[in-house]
Amino acid sequence: MVTPASSPTNDRRTALLGATIEEIALAGTRGMRVDEIARRAGVSTALIYHHFTNRAGLLLAALEHVGERAEAYTDHADGTGRDDLIAVLLDEIQDEAVVRVNSAAWSELRGSAIFDQALRSTLSALRARWADDIADLVRRGQDDGSLDRSLEPVEVGLQLPMIVEGVSASWLTGTLSTHEARAHLESIVVAILRG
Amino acid sequence: MVTPASSPTNDRRTALLGATIEEIALAGTRGMRVDEIARRAGVSTALIYHHFTNRAGLLLAALEHVGERAEAYTDHADGTGRDDLIAVLLDEIQDEAVVRVNSAAWSELRGSAIFDQALRSTLSALRARWADDIADLVRRGQDDGSLDRSLEPVEVGLQLPMIVEGVSASWLTGTLSTHEARAHLESIVVAILRG
Repeated sequence: MVTPASSPTNDRRTALLGATIEEIALAGTRGMRVDEIARRAGVSTALIYHHFTNRAGLLLAALEHVGERAEAYTDHADGTGRDDLIAVLLDEIQDEAVVRVNSAAWSELRGSAIFDQALRSTLSALRARWADDIADLVRRGQDDGSLDRSLEPVEVGLQLPMIVEGVSASWLTGTLSTHEARAHLESIVVAILRG
Repeated sequence: MVTPASSPTNDRRTALLGATIEEIALAGTRGMRVDEIARRAGVSTALIYHHFTNRAGLLLAALEHVGERAEAYTDHADGTGRDDLIAVLLDEIQDEAVVRVNSAAWSELRGSAIFDQALRSTLSALRARWADDIADLVRRGQDDGSLDRSLEPVEVGLQLPMIVEGVSASWLTGTLSTHEARAHLESIVVAILRG
């Protein structure tokens, strides 16, 4: 992941997006109030509009930031392709506030993308990047011998994120504990990776 | 599924719930307007409150109705346990307006259940019934020899609905066509059912 160099402007923008993601996770995209985000971040609503122009711009930037944060907390590059792939996927479900909030916001924004064309194309781009990253891990596993050659990297890259999203939904609604959700996710992923 | 005998009161209730599910699929649970449901159904808002007491009662009845409708359009009992199980799951994704609307409303109501305790317990009960139905199909497949004895019916019963939900999310947002979504779902389910 390319992280822009830290600067006061970037730090402020990141803080505003963090507050926005929390508000979306709590109130949903439709219930999201810009004045509440301003209150959380300790700034004026005018500053938020200065950075993101309008509500639609803020939602779009929040969706991109959710994707960036997820890439940061699911990074693995030290084991076999198979081990790193499983670790990357399991890291989408963790007992960390930032992971839960990020996952809930992703789920909300994805739901809104059903109706919101602008969100929809950003969502598609983020999904495509997620699928590509997984396909790359599958290829790495095939090269190092930890994954079966019969697996189709592109197909697996599309399928595993959907499985993460499905298991996460049951985790976020409390149907599954973090431990149970991770165990189910691992067992499904292992079944898929048998090839 | 036990269907109550048709009566004018039941027919009216079903029509109101159908209009509610359409409105939820279109506007979300937070954006859902009772006057818009009344307009769709051609009745007064007073009649809706007469049947469902309040907004919370209407949401709860809608969630139950989404579950009943899904049971009705995913019913299979004429093949092997394995074939019926795969057919039941694939029927969750169909190019029929009622299926798409039902799936979008389920996804919306599930999202709201993160915050809404009353929805949460009904959602858990519906999920448990769904999981039980799938576990029964797995046992039937094990009895008729179409499924491997090593499969854990309860575990598979919990996992397959999450996979349906995950693939449906990509279908509802248009990332996958109906054909693609069904193909991915089938390939994942077949991998799980290898045992």
